[in-house]
Amino acid sequence: MVKVTLWGLGAMGSGIARLLRQRNYPIAAVWEQNKDKLNRSLGEVLDDQGPAGPDITEFNGKFPEKGNLLIIATGSTVLEVAPLIRHGVKAGQNVLTIAEEMAYPWASNPEIARTLDQEAKEQGVRVLGTGINPGFVLDALVGFITTPCTQVDKVYARRVNDLSPFGPTVLRTQGVGTSPEEFNRGLETGAIVGHVGFPESVYMIAAMLGWEISRIDQVRDPIISHVSRTTPYISIEPGQVAGCNHRAKAYDGGGNLVIELEHPQQICPELAGVDTGDHITIEGTPKIQMDIKPEIPGGTGTIAVAVNVIPKLLQAEPGLLTMNKLVIPSYGR
Amino acid sequence: MVKVTLWGLGAMGSGIARLLRQRNYPIAAVWEQNKDKLNRSLGEVLDDQGPAGPDITEFNGKFPEKGNLLIIATGSTVLEVAPLIRHGVKAGQNVLTIAEEMAYPWASNPEIARTLDQEAKEQGVRVLGTGINPGFVLDALVGFITTPCTQVDKVYARRVNDLSPFGPTVLRTQGVGTSPEEFNRGLETGAIVGHVGFPESVYMIAAMLGWEISRIDQVRDPIISHVSRTTPYISIEPGQVAGCNHRAKAYDGGGNLVIELEHPQQICPELAGVDTGDHITIEGTPKIQMDIKPEIPGGTGTIAVAVNVIPKLLQAEPGLLTMNKLVIPSYGR
Repeated sequence: MVKVTLWGLGAMGSGIARLLRQRNYPIAAVWEQNKDKLNRSLGEVLDDQGPAGPDITEFNGKFPEKGNLLIIATGSTVLEVAPLIRHGVKAGQNVLTIAEEMAYPWASNPEIARTLDQEAKEQGVRVLGTGINPGFVLDALVGFITTPCTQVDKVYARRVNDLSPFGPTVLRTQGVGTSPEEFNRGLETGAIVGHVGFPESVYMIAAMLGWEISRIDQVRDPIISHVSRTTPYISIEPGQVAGCNHRAKAYDGGGNLVIELEHPQQICPELAGVDTGDHITIEGTPKIQMDIKPEIPGGTGTIAVAVNVIPKLLQAEPGLLTMNKLVIPSYGR
Repeated sequence: MVKVTLWGLGAMGSGIARLLRQRNYPIAAVWEQNKDKLNRSLGEVLDDQGPAGPDITEFNGKFPEKGNLLIIATGSTVLEVAPLIRHGVKAGQNVLTIAEEMAYPWASNPEIARTLDQEAKEQGVRVLGTGINPGFVLDALVGFITTPCTQVDKVYARRVNDLSPFGPTVLRTQGVGTSPEEFNRGLETGAIVGHVGFPESVYMIAAMLGWEISRIDQVRDPIISHVSRTTPYISIEPGQVAGCNHRAKAYDGGGNLVIELEHPQQICPELAGVDTGDHITIEGTPKIQMDIKPEIPGGTGTIAVAVNVIPKLLQAEPGLLTMNKLVIPSYGR
């Protein structure tokens, strides 16, 4: 049975560790920088009634024997995690990461993607980025649901979610609690980013449908609240920003709008009369309208997708993979 | 590019032929028993503005060179199509069929499934049964949508469709136009069968989720109309049967109900205030509620699924395959 090395024990890494333990995946090592967690046992930090497991250490480069699995839950971008992935690949480890940009790294960093693919093939290992979104809702699921279509002209998908459970870091990157002016300044400085994953989802859908994409336009608008909204982490007043309405439009070589993705994220959407959900419209023959209400929750969803795809990842051909290259995944192991 | 031999040119076979031609798949031969179609060109029979293509003949056993694809659209059961599949496998052809029971042939005929799997492996070819249902809506899609779940306790799926477009053969097997007494007699004699595919869908879902199934109970109830309903093929009066409400419940080894599938089929459901749709409920963590409204149409859906999975079938390992063993399929080629 595959031994897992886990790099990163934040909210997502901890959730992945708990689920791996529930499923009886052996965890060989856990690396983390947070001083509060270092030199304590995994069981103590997770407090999940499980065995003690390994002590948490800083990265030490000691991997179990070749053919095992490194899971990286430390950052969102290809530039952040590519050096970590390389440590694993060089040691003959398969690598799975929830870094959003790694869901389709050819979108943001095609040169790095090419190199990682080559190195993974040389070592005979697999590298995959995944998560709920990008990785599932706005891309792999969109592609899969086109299977009963004789013709597809355009896809439109919209993920409407609730940021209320999330802490200060996430709220800051979505501009929650800013004034509309601060929101726009935040977009300019890069402090406010909205959703990370639209180019990745667009290129994955395009790969599945055999489409060429010539241009992606992204727009981030503040969701200005007309009511007071309060979560455990923040309170906002009317006129302040409750979240970010982030949209992407992708065009084919002929300039036709072929993929339209929307991901409005805000705190307390119910106070503005907004129902959360995941919605996919396939314009084609037949037209397909799929609605998932409420939305598949992001945190649990990412943890589950990461752990559930492990068997499909390990049976795939070596190289840099994306979700659309896996055998149809499902719950289980 | 793969050359296709098509066996069966009824409604489904003709639709598959049209879509194959639209996608520029070369069609090497077409075999059909219907005297009205024999010895005419495929283009003439399809009347699709395409090239003449091959002349339609009775089965003659002349396959193109090894490694090509035989598509069988002649029947619903394993017993009907297994001998045809064997002709293809022995000639080194990959085989795809829309026979419902072949979507998971281990459910109805495990011995034949084992033999077909062994023969396909010996010949280095792939055999797959597929279609909209079984094959997609009530099984592969159900399994795929559990990917974001850390826990799955039970799945419940319901396909509510409209039989109005269908002709006399389909209406007869669903009991449309019978009296309630005739319906019950039809069930006893086997003239009325309801949906073909529940055991197949149950076992495919169970395989995806790693569940053992100990028992499947099926119930077929007449849908008795309270209003007059008329289609191009039939008219029924209040008190007559408008269709068949077919359900299946599957239990695990502990006797727990773990998979519940429903497929009520009737003419003019809108006259009884019934909305059509495909509905999936995953009871677990998180709970997922997916609704597709209206339902993905059966005819177009089966034709599209059959043609869209060809690339994924040809890249799979040799053997007898089922949809859950393919790389995530999608529209395209």
